[in-house]
Amino acid sequence: MSLQQSDSPFVLNNWYVVGLGADVTAAPLARRICNLPMMFYRTDSGEVAALTDRCAHRGMPLSKGERTGDNIRCIYHGLEFNSAGVCVKVPGQERIPASLRVRSYPVVEKDALVWVWTGDAAKADPTTIVSHPYHTDPAWVWTRGAIEVKANWQFLNDNLLDLSHLQYVHKKTIGGNPEEDQKAEVKAERVGSKVMITRWLRDMDAPPFHRHVAGFTGRIDRWQEIEFRPGVLEFYSGAMDANTGAFDGKRVGGMHIRHFHAITPETAHTTRYMFTQARNFRTDNAGLTEKMHQLTVMTFEEDRAVLEEQYARLREDPDAPLVNIKVDEGVMHARRIVTELLDRENKPSGAPVLTNAVA
Amino acid sequence: MSLQQSDSPFVLNNWYVVGLGADVTAAPLARRICNLPMMFYRTDSGEVAALTDRCAHRGMPLSKGERTGDNIRCIYHGLEFNSAGVCVKVPGQERIPASLRVRSYPVVEKDALVWVWTGDAAKADPTTIVSHPYHTDPAWVWTRGAIEVKANWQFLNDNLLDLSHLQYVHKKTIGGNPEEDQKAEVKAERVGSKVMITRWLRDMDAPPFHRHVAGFTGRIDRWQEIEFRPGVLEFYSGAMDANTGAFDGKRVGGMHIRHFHAITPETAHTTRYMFTQARNFRTDNAGLTEKMHQLTVMTFEEDRAVLEEQYARLREDPDAPLVNIKVDEGVMHARRIVTELLDRENKPSGAPVLTNAVA
Amino acid sequence: MSLQQSDSPFVLNNWYVVGLGADVTAAPLARRICNLPMMFYRTDSGEVAALTDRCAHRGMPLSKGERTGDNIRCIYHGLEFNSAGVCVKVPGQERIPASLRVRSYPVVEKDALVWVWTGDAAKADPTTIVSHPYHTDPAWVWTRGAIEVKANWQFLNDNLLDLSHLQYVHKKTIGGNPEEDQKAEVKAERVGSKVMITRWLRDMDAPPFHRHVAGFTGRIDRWQEIEFRPGVLEFYSGAMDANTGAFDGKRVGGMHIRHFHAITPETAHTTRYMFTQARNFRTDNAGLTEKMHQLTVMTFEEDRAVLEEQYARLREDPDAPLVNIKVDEGVMHARRIVTELLDRENKPSGAPVLTNAVA
Repeated sequence: MSLQQSDSPFVLNNWYVVGLGADVTAAPLARRICNLPMMFYRTDSGEVAALTDRCAHRGMPLSKGERTGDNIRCIYHGLEFNSAGVCVKVPGQERIPASLRVRSYPVVEKDALVWVWTGDAAKADPTTIVSHPYHTDPAWVWTRGAIEVKANWQFLNDNLLDLSHLQYVHKKTIGGNPEEDQKAEVKAERVGSKVMITRWLRDMDAPPFHRHVAGFTGRIDRWQEIEFRPGVLEFYSGAMDANTGAFDGKRVGGMHIRHFHAITPETAHTTRYMFTQARNFRTDNAGLTEKMHQLTVMTFEEDRAVLEEQYARLREDPDAPLVNIKVDEGVMHARRIVTELLDRENKPSGAPVLTNAVA
Repeated sequence: MSLQQSDSPFVLNNWYVVGLGADVTAAPLARRICNLPMMFYRTDSGEVAALTDRCAHRGMPLSKGERTGDNIRCIYHGLEFNSAGVCVKVPGQERIPASLRVRSYPVVEKDALVWVWTGDAAKADPTTIVSHPYHTDPAWVWTRGAIEVKANWQFLNDNLLDLSHLQYVHKKTIGGNPEEDQKAEVKAERVGSKVMITRWLRDMDAPPFHRHVAGFTGRIDRWQEIEFRPGVLEFYSGAMDANTGAFDGKRVGGMHIRHFHAITPETAHTTRYMFTQARNFRTDNAGLTEKMHQLTVMTFEEDRAVLEEQYARLREDPDAPLVNIKVDEGVMHARRIVTELLDRENKPSGAPVLTNAVA
Repeated sequence: MSLQQSDSPFVLNNWYVVGLGADVTAAPLARRICNLPMMFYRTDSGEVAALTDRCAHRGMPLSKGERTGDNIRCIYHGLEFNSAGVCVKVPGQERIPASLRVRSYPVVEKDALVWVWTGDAAKADPTTIVSHPYHTDPAWVWTRGAIEVKANWQFLNDNLLDLSHLQYVHKKTIGGNPEEDQKAEVKAERVGSKVMITRWLRDMDAPPFHRHVAGFTGRIDRWQEIEFRPGVLEFYSGAMDANTGAFDGKRVGGMHIRHFHAITPETAHTTRYMFTQARNFRTDNAGLTEKMHQLTVMTFEEDRAVLEEQYARLREDPDAPLVNIKVDEGVMHARRIVTELLDRENKPSGAPVLTNAVA
C-alpha cells in the first residue's frame, strides 16, 4: 500500500453525516463535504435545505447572507434563492434567467442526524442510510463530540478498523492490558460494502473501568464489535458476567455502549470526525455521562495527534512503500471497498499497491 | 464569466498609482506592483527613482540598503546603483560590467500622486494619466486611506462598477434606502478604454446624511457618476436642490464629493487599494472631515470582507460558471476593456466565458 | 548565475553534521537532512543509530515512539525496530516479513560531532571526514550555536565564502574598517573538492576587538583563512604582532580562533546551520567566552536576515539573471564543485548560468 490512495477522489454517491439535527437551524451553516462548499439551513416548516455555498451570480458564499422567509439572500448583490437552489429574485430586473440557480443536495434527517448525498441525486436512496436508533430511544443517554483532523478520511477508517493501536496510542486513557488484549479473538470479514469486525475477550478479570462504571465484581466476557461502511463506523462495546452467553447472542443486562463515528471527508487532506457515545445503564447519572464523555474526547485527541503526524509524513513521499501486517485485515477490506466504489464512479482507483503479502 | 480571468496576466502598458507624493521620501519604499518587486526613493533634487527591488549581483532587495548621495547601496556586498538603475560602484574592482544594472521604471508625479509605468518604457506617455485636480486645488479638502485586499484587482473593479451592492454590503454604513435606490436612473457606457456610469436619483427627500452634512432641508436631486479606466476609478457623488438643473449641467453650489480610487494590482491575488475623498463644502470643519473619513474606511472594510470571501470561494473552482445580470453592464464593459488590453499585449486573453446572456 | 541552482537536488554521497555528540541521547531525536526524515538515538552501548523516521508499516514517525532496550517501538501499532532498522517485533504475529525494515544510515562520531552519510552506504568512507581537533583538545575552549535559515544551503556557502559582505551586513557587529578591509590580500583557489580562501591584512593598527580581547597594543598581521567542502566550512582567524612571520608559517602565540560551520541542508529551501567557535587564549575567562559567543550569535542573526530576504526575492523569479563580480571567485569555485558532485550522482547539474564574465 502507498499513500497514493489518500489523494484519490471522494466516493460521491454516498450519504455523509452533516451533523446533528440540532446543528442545523434557521441560520446558515457552512460546511465543506468532499471538498464541495455547502450551506445548510432549516426552513420554517422544519425541512433542511442543502445548497452549494456559492452564489450563481458572482460566487459569494451564500452562507454569509441572510434568511428572508424560506429563502437565502446573497449579501453581495441581493439575489435570493429558495431552498431548492432556484433564484427567485434579482434586484434590478424582472426576468430571472433559468441558469441562475445553485445546486441543491438530497438531505435526510434520521436518528437525530442530518445526512447529505453528495453524488448523483437520482441515485440517492434514503433506505440505504444506516439505522442507529440509540439517539432517539429514551432508554439510552448519549453525548456528542467532534474534531477536525488534518488527514485524509481513509486514514481515520484505518485507525478505527485496527484496534491493536489501543494499547499503544491510548496507553494513558483506554489502552487496557496488553497481555489480556493480545488474547482477543479477532475476526474481520467483508459483507458487501461493509466490514464487520468482532473482537471478543472471554472470561477475564473485569478491568477497573468495568468494575467502577458497571459494577462488575468477578470475571467477565467482553466484546468490541465494529460495523463499517464508507462515512460511518458503528462500534459496539460491552461486557457481561463470564459464560452467561454473550457470544451466543444472549446479551440482556450487563454493560452496553454504542459508539457512532461519522467520518465525513472535508477536503482531500482534512476530515470532520463526529462521534456519539450512547449507553443504557445508569442513564440518570450525569456525572458518569460527563466523565465518560471526557475520556472519549481525550482518547480521540490521542488519535488525532497520531493521525496528523502519520499523514504529514506520508504526504511528503506518497510513493514510499508500506507493508501490511496481520492486524490490517479489516483495514484492507475497507480500502478495497472504497477502491471498488471509486471504480464504480469511474475515478482513478487509487488501488492499494501491496508491496508485501500479509505475513 | 468564470474566474479564469482573475488569473490573467497584468496590463503592463499602464500607469499605476504608487501612493501619494508624500509617501515617497529619501528612504527606500518597497512596493510590489503587477507582481514586479519595486523600490522607490526621492533624490536630493526631488525626483522619484523607481527601480527593480533586486540587486543585479545576488538578488538582495535594494530596499534593504542605504542611500548614499542619490544612489542606493546594497546591504549585502555594497554595490551602488544610481537612480537610473546603473551600477556605479563595485567594491573590490574598478571596471563595472555593463550588465550590472537594475531596471528602472518611468515615474510621473501629478496631482499629489506618484504614478509608475510597468510596461514598455518607450510607450509611456504621461499625457494619458488621468487628471484629478482636487488634491491640489485649495478649495478642496481631502483625506486618504489604503487597504490591502486579498483578491485579484479585477474584482475590485467589479465591486466599484456595480453600485447595486451598496444596499446589501453597506447596509450598516452608506447603504441608503433600497426602495429609493431602485428608482435610480442608471446608464453604463463604454467610451474608448473608459467606462462611464451615471446613477441619477431625481427629486427625492434628502437622506439624513445630506441633511446633516450639507444642510439640505427639502427635496434634492442626487448623482453618482463613475469614470473608470484600468488602475483608476473616479467617483463623483453630489446633490443639489431638486429641479435646479443638476442633470442639465448646472451644478454650482450644493454638495460635491470627489472620490479617487487607485486599484493597483500587487500580485495576481492581492491588490493595494488607495482611496481619497475630497469635498469643497465646509472645508474648515475638521470634525466633519474626520467623520466622513471614518465612514469611508468602515465602508471599504465591508467591501474588503466581501471581496475576500468571494475571491477565495471562486479560486477554489475557477471553472465554476457565473451568470451575469442586468446590473453587470458596467462590470462587463470593464472586463472587456481589460481583455482587449491584454490581447494587445499578446497575453492569454482571459476572455469572459458568458454562460448566459444578460436577462 | 541564476537561482535555478538552488532548486537542484542534494549531494547525497556526503557526510553531514547532525549535531554535537551530546545532542544524541537515548531519547529519539528527529532531524530532516537533505529532505530525508531521519531519527537518531544512542544505544545502551553508546552507538548512534540513524534510521528513516517513518515506520515501514503505516508511515508513523518512529521518533514519536518509545525506546525498548536498544530498539525503538512505534507509537501507533507497536512494531519494534532495532538500531539497524530491522523489524524485530510485530504485535499479533510470529513471522516478520523481511520487507518490514526502515533504512539505516552510516553514522560516525568524531571530534565531538555526529556525522551521517545520506547517500549510497557502500561509498561511505569515514576517513574522508574533515578533522577538526579543537573540540576535543583541552587547550581550546569553545561554544556552539545553531540557527535555522530559510534559504537553500548553497546560499549559506556563498555568504561564508565571500567575506566582502562583512563590512556591509555586519557593520554593527564584526564589520571592521572598510578602508583597511579593502587592503586585504585575498586569494581564492580550488584544491580538488575544496575551496581555500586566504585573506591577509599586513601590518595594521590592532582594531579595538584585538586590543581588548587579546591584549595587542601595536601593529599586527591578521589572517582569515577558509577551507570549504560541501557541508562544512572551517574558518581560521587570527593575529600576531606585525612582521613576526605570520604569513611564513610562524604562528606561535598571538590570537587564534577556529570557527567551524556545519551547513546541513534540511529541505531545498531551509538549512540548519550549526557553528562552533574555539580559542586557545584566555581559556579560563568564562566572561570572555560568553561575550564572544554572543557576538557570534548576533553576527549570524544578521546573516540570517539577509539570506532570507535574498532567497525569498530570488525564489520569486528563479530565472532572473545574476551577475558575478571579482569577489565571487571563491563562491564560484564552490558552486562548480557542487555542480560536479551532482553530475557525478547523475542529477540535473543546476549548472551556473553565467550571464556575464567576471569583470
